[in-house]
Order: sequence, then C-alpha cells, then structure tokens
Amino acid sequence: MRLNAADEVFATRLKTLVPEDVLRTPEARYAQDPRGRRAGQIGALALPRDVHQVSTLVKAAAEARVPVLPYGGGTGLVGGQVAWDGPAPLVISLERMSAIRGVYPTENVLVAEAGAVLDDIQAAAEAVDRLFPLSLASEGSCRIGGNLATNAGGVNVLRYGNTRDLCLGLEAVLPNGEIWNGLTRLRKDNTGYDLRNLLVGSEGTLGIITAAAVKLSPVPAGQGTAMIVVSSAAAALELLALARSIVGDGVSAFELIHRQGLEFLTEVLPDVRQPFAEPPEWCVLIELGLGAGLDPGQMLEQLFEQAVAQDLALDGVISQSQAQRQELWTVREHIPEANRLIGSIASHDISVPISLIPEFVAEAGKRIAANGQFRINAFGHAGDGNLHYNIFPPKGQSRDAFKPMAADLTRIVHDLVHEMDGSISAEHGIGRLKAKDLERYGDPTKLAAMRAIKTALDPAGIMNPGAVMRV
Amino acid sequence: MRLNAADEVFATRLKTLVPEDVLRTPEARYAQDPRGRRAGQIGALALPRDVHQVSTLVKAAAEARVPVLPYGGGTGLVGGQVAWDGPAPLVISLERMSAIRGVYPTENVLVAEAGAVLDDIQAAAEAVDRLFPLSLASEGSCRIGGNLATNAGGVNVLRYGNTRDLCLGLEAVLPNGEIWNGLTRLRKDNTGYDLRNLLVGSEGTLGIITAAAVKLSPVPAGQGTAMIVVSSAAAALELLALARSIVGDGVSAFELIHRQGLEFLTEVLPDVRQPFAEPPEWCVLIELGLGAGLDPGQMLEQLFEQAVAQDLALDGVISQSQAQRQELWTVREHIPEANRLIGSIASHDISVPISLIPEFVAEAGKRIAANGQFRINAFGHAGDGNLHYNIFPPKGQSRDAFKPMAADLTRIVHDLVHEMDGSISAEHGIGRLKAKDLERYGDPTKLAAMRAIKTALDPAGIMNPGAVMRV
Repeated sequence: MRLNAADEVFATRLKTLVPEDVLRTPEARYAQDPRGRRAGQIGALALPRDVHQVSTLVKAAAEARVPVLPYGGGTGLVGGQVAWDGPAPLVISLERMSAIRGVYPTENVLVAEAGAVLDDIQAAAEAVDRLFPLSLASEGSCRIGGNLATNAGGVNVLRYGNTRDLCLGLEAVLPNGEIWNGLTRLRKDNTGYDLRNLLVGSEGTLGIITAAAVKLSPVPAGQGTAMIVVSSAAAALELLALARSIVGDGVSAFELIHRQGLEFLTEVLPDVRQPFAEPPEWCVLIELGLGAGLDPGQMLEQLFEQAVAQDLALDGVISQSQAQRQELWTVREHIPEANRLIGSIASHDISVPISLIPEFVAEAGKRIAANGQFRINAFGHAGDGNLHYNIFPPKGQSRDAFKPMAADLTRIVHDLVHEMDGSISAEHGIGRLKAKDLERYGDPTKLAAMRAIKTALDPAGIMNPGAVMRV
Repeated sequence: MRLNAADEVFATRLKTLVPEDVLRTPEARYAQDPRGRRAGQIGALALPRDVHQVSTLVKAAAEARVPVLPYGGGTGLVGGQVAWDGPAPLVISLERMSAIRGVYPTENVLVAEAGAVLDDIQAAAEAVDRLFPLSLASEGSCRIGGNLATNAGGVNVLRYGNTRDLCLGLEAVLPNGEIWNGLTRLRKDNTGYDLRNLLVGSEGTLGIITAAAVKLSPVPAGQGTAMIVVSSAAAALELLALARSIVGDGVSAFELIHRQGLEFLTEVLPDVRQPFAEPPEWCVLIELGLGAGLDPGQMLEQLFEQAVAQDLALDGVISQSQAQRQELWTVREHIPEANRLIGSIASHDISVPISLIPEFVAEAGKRIAANGQFRINAFGHAGDGNLHYNIFPPKGQSRDAFKPMAADLTRIVHDLVHEMDGSISAEHGIGRLKAKDLERYGDPTKLAAMRAIKTALDPAGIMNPGAVMRV
C-alpha cells in the first residue's frame, strides 16, 4: 500500500486537530543518526503533551496514510529513528511527555511517561532508596520510551534483565490511533495475550509507547568492583561461575575487556587512567552488589584468591573506595568512545550461548585474519553472552580504504554467529541497518508470523515503515 | 468460520500421515476438569513423539478445519484444556515429548521438551547444582509446556518471576502447522518481535509449544523459613519491606495466611501440625535464600526482633531444621486442599497493586458481608499482590444452597479488583471459565488487538477455540 509524505496539506490538517504549540517546524536534528552515517527525512514534527494528542495525531496519519516515526532520545544505533527512504514521515517526539507520574516504594514500582530521560528515572528511584537498574552509555539523553521500544540492554542485564524484564505495564497508542491502557502496576496478570512484550522491542512499528510502569529493586547495601586479569576468555567464564558459586545472584556486572580496547584508550584517550602497566590480553570488570552483613571487598578478595589458585586469574585490582570504583568503570565506559575515535570498519552487536564465547572469539579472529591484517576489539557483556565485536584497520591506516570490505567482514561475523545459534542483534535492535540481515538469518516461520502481526495491527503500514522489516 | 469435529473420516486421514502408535483411542481422562466441574469432548487423540509429527497433525487439522486442543499435564484450573462446547477436537498430548534435551550449567540454561514434568526439570537442575525456581502445587504432574502456555505463577514469583521470566527460547508449531525454531539459549536477542512472550500465556490459542530453553539460578547456599504473626494485613507488607531492606533480593517467598485457612485445616485436616495454639488473624510465611557467608536463621531473628520493635510482628516461629522448614511449608501447602474439602461457593485468583492489599481485603470483606454471613479465606502470594480469595458457606451449611449466589459474589469481587486496577486472573489464566470476565473487564483496545493477532495467526480459528476469547 502506498504511503503519502507528511506534506503541507497534512500539516494544515493537523493544525485543526491539536493545539498550535504541538506542531513545530521540522528540525534537522530529529533526522540525524548519532553515528552520522545517513540523514533521515522529516515531513512534519509534533511534540504532543499527552496520550490523547498522540492518539489524535496517529489517527490523522492513519487516515491520510502518512508514515509516523516515534522519536525518543534519538540515541539508537541501528537507524530505527532515522527515515532515510520512503515518503517523509510525521515525527512524533515524546520529549514533552517526560513526567514521573508516580513512585510506589512499597510496591517497588515507578510510573513514568515515555519521554522521561533514563537518568531522571534513576534519580527518582534513588530518592526513595530504590534502584532502577537499567544502565547504559546514553543514560543522560535516552528516554524510557525508546529504551522500551528497543528493549535496551546495558551493563546490569546479567542481574536484572533486559528492559523488557523491568517493565510491568504500558500505555500506548496503537497504529489505528486507539489508546491501550495497560499501565498496570501488577506483578502478576494473566489476562490475555502479552501485548506489553509485543510492543517492547518492536521498535515503534506496532505503536507508540506513551508511558510505562517499571520495576524498582532494593539498593544493594554494599557494592564492590574489581578488574581482574584472566588467563583466557574461557577462564573469564569460569571466573563468573566461581563468583556466582560464592555470592549467588550478587554479581551485578561482568564485562570482558580485550587488550585491543586498552591499547585504543592509550592511543586516543591517554587521560583515562588504566589499572595495569601492561595491557593484559583479557581482563574482566566484575561488580558485586550485596545485602547487609556482607563486605563486597572481602568477597572480591576471596574470589580473587580462589581464582588465582585455580589459575583463572593472573592479576587484579579491587576498588578500595567509591572513587576507585568509578575509575575502573571509567576504563570500561570509555572503550566505545575510543572505538569511535579510531574508527571501525565494521561493528557488531552479537550474542552467542555464553559457553561458546571463547570458541566464537577464536574462530571469528581466525576467519577475519584470513581476510587481512585487521585489529579487532571484542568487548562487552560477557555474562550475557553479548559481545561488541568491532573490526578496525591496521594501525596508522585509515578505515576509508577498507570500507568496501565492510559488508564482507560483517557477513563473516554474522555467518559464524548464525552457525553458533547466536543473535546478530543482541541489544541494539534491527532498525533499518539490520533489516536485510534479519531477512537472511531470521527463522522463516517467525518472519512470516511477524509480517502477519504487523499487517493485522497496522494494515496501512504507517508505523515506522522500513524499520525491523523492509517495506 | 465453521469448524468440523475430529470424526472418523478425519481420524482415518491422520492414520495415513503419522505412525500408527501416535493415534490413540480417545480416553475420557483427557477431557476431565481437575475441579470436576464440567466434562469436555474429545474427537481424536494423538500422542506425537516429535515436533515434526505435531506439525503434520496441525497441518491436517488446519486443512480439515478441525479444532486442536494442546494437552499438557491437565492440571489447569480455568478450563483451558477442557473443550466443553463446539465440535469435538483433536487432542494433542505432549506427554511423550518429555525429554530433557540438554543442561548447560555454565550458561544456567536447561532445554526441555514441552511434555517434561515440572519436578523432573527441577531434579535435572538440582543434579548440576542449579535451581529451576518454578514451584507450584501441581509440580508432580504439570508439564512445562502447560506452565509456559498459561504463564504459571507459584510461590517463588516474588524473587524469580513468572514462568515467562524463566523462559529464554521456544520451539513451537504455529496454527498453520509450520515449525518455529526459536529455541535459543541466548540471554539477549533483539531480532524482531517477541513471539516467545506472545505464545507464553496464550493458553494454546496461538500454537503448540513443543520445547523450551529455560533459565536456571544458583542454589542459595542457605535457606531459612519463618512463620510470623503480623498485627494486620498492612503490617505484613511493612514486614516485607523491612525484610527487603535487610536482605535485598534474598526474600524467596512471602505468603499471607488468614485465620480462616488455619481453622479450615483444623476442621478437615487435623493432622497438619500448626505452629500456633490459637490461629492468628493474619500470619505470613517468609523464606530467605541467601548466598554464602550469611546465616538465614540469624537474619530471620534480626528481622523478627525489628518487626516486634516496630509493632509489626506479634509472635513467630523460625525454623531450626530442614524438617521444621518443611513443616511450616506443609501448613501453607495444605490450605488449597482444606479449601477443596470445605467446598467454596466461589473462588478467585486476583491481584491488585501490592500496596492496596489491605484496602482490598477490608473492602471486599465488607461488600461480601453485605450479602450474607460467609466465611472468607484470603491467602496467597502477598509479595506479588496476588491473593486467592475464596468464599465459603457458614459453618455447618452446604455450599449447594449458596451456589445460585456464586456469580453475584464473583461479580462483587471482580468489580472491586477492577476498581483497584487489579487483575481478575493473576496466575491461573483465562481458559474457558473466565472468557466472559475478560470481555467485561479487559481493555477494549487490547481485546481488539488480541482478536486481530488471533485472526492473523490462526485465520480458521482451529487452535483451542473458546479458550481466552469466546468464538
């Protein structure tokens, strides 16, 4: 079915339906890709103040067959928020719907509008002595609606789950403009199909999330962080198992870091203080969050001693203060920025069954090396089986010369992931950048079911067309 | 669209498609409701050995427009597995697909076929020193496919979540007979719509789950259980908050018990040893599961002392041995059986926002009392906001005389739940018994979306017709 651009005629029609200040002159920044690859189009821009205005806008778009692009913080990495082809869409930014509607400490629940910035939600939880554990690099600007629409991951998934695991209820506008009030604070509700999880991770293609009830957790009484040099990638996994045998669920984060990442830091971000004089081949950042009566530092020492005794650990630094904890995290958190400054030829957000990580790293390295002398930075959320696997030119060379090889390199990585029953998009989503990959690697029965669901809920195909599935 | 019964002609056709031993003479036990309310119909019975046979059966049913009833352990309480109207279905029992396909302790993952009995899965996890935390009354006979199809709850939801939270991947046969291979062991996979969670909780109306990858957890190093007399239902919630402030995520179960339940035990199950001489108005069963280095008994004592100091607790028993722990659980676990022996007029599986439990209990009691002198047993998973709220005749009177009032009493309870933004089915599902209630209380936008999804995936309406949504 053909869609129409959000043109002057459509904008004029919208003006009769919503208050004047809801419609804005389209601004280029709403059509920008944060990695600066491709610019999108924007036909009309609306900044609604409430769910009823969102509903009115979507109904008008459905009637006029105008594409709708829901816009959160604009931080997505796969082009889900950038309409680079098709008719110019109506961009609906949720930024003015940013209220924290309620905080319920007894229930460990918080209700926020979709435009609430992630770190505002974290702060609102902290204010009542609770933790909202979703934590990721863009938390200062990403918005919870976008986190939900993309089922964002981050560094605490190991313990607290993905964004979908933190969501209890949703309010949303479906593609026909109807409002779904599913904003429940319930922990248990088995009344019909799980529309919530269908919208979470659908990247704006099945509706616009306008508010959410999310789970809070107790704040751990004590936290401790260590960076431990491990003897191999396999040893890292054994270290994780050992840590869990000691502290159970208390392992909050377990991040794998490769020598290449530390060398990149030295090269382009020399101010970031590194804990080891010589960058080790592999190290892990481990964080414990424990209840009262336990000393995280002591537990980490115990873990380290046992790990050394079992030849898993070779060296290590255990934080002795909040400042030292932050310093260790700073190392981990600056690796993506270092990657950006070096400039990757191809980057990948993959996952494999956790036990296959060492095999994946070894085999992928071999296959990439067969195609040239590249530098590889594999790092990330090893406890979730999720690695960011990025390929860079040899030192001193520009990535531009290698860009023609990017697609082939990605193919090599994704083929291997597929052979290992892994995922070609562990936490970033499909967006527009990976829609072709999903067609190639996705289960055909699932893809057919997805298309049937999309057509059933959005027969005209107005919601974020081109994202997840190509039109 | 009209459906056809699974008659002789259809059975003869099936015989040409699957090995002889897959088809059985229909047996009445596959059409029984465990609460003995209504008998179902069964036209043909198949016991497939693998997913390909399930696929063949469903394809044949789709072609002939014959209804299909997926059958697990048959323990569901809402008639989801009992076809009491419409043409007689083909019942597909998963009982011969009961293999544990793999256990991956490093990954904390187990892969089982849908027919695996829950306690066999628990045992397989235990054998590798892991915990599969799903635990409910029927665990000796319910099967994981049914647990998933109904998103079963149980006593450990507080800490580990509902069945859907324990599921990583699924293999299933969709209503068109196609096999979906989504049996991933991944912790993170953002490749398209969440078909897994759509099937989980859809009660066999969108497909047949044939296998699942589920999450395992570390076994807590130490467990401790206490039964604590609380000064009110509100005090119970404050006690839970206090417990969490002390042990964080370590609270594994938090069950509320009313005096009525204990009196029922005395009346019909006098052999069950009760911890208190006089049954208290409200008590809670609390269980801690803690990592190494902590003494659960000591933590419970600390909790109890603080609770007494804050006037939350009046009396209590802390288990000093495994046998005492079991004894306390025996009290809780026999309440449903005592209810059954007494015979309820109407029973309800409801949830409300946790902080509203005291208000719900008070207000519901008032409204029911306005209709007669009933006995009410409200008990259950208070930590999840989930109560089983059952209404009984006055002592010495038979429920039969009150049965005509059952629908009105249910209406009173469900209306109040609805006013409080609660759920009329917290953990048992909709099945056939609550399909009308879902129509009454469900969000209209959600119901319309559910119908659209059902029609998209099952255009002929063969999968468990009449369950969840009336035909």
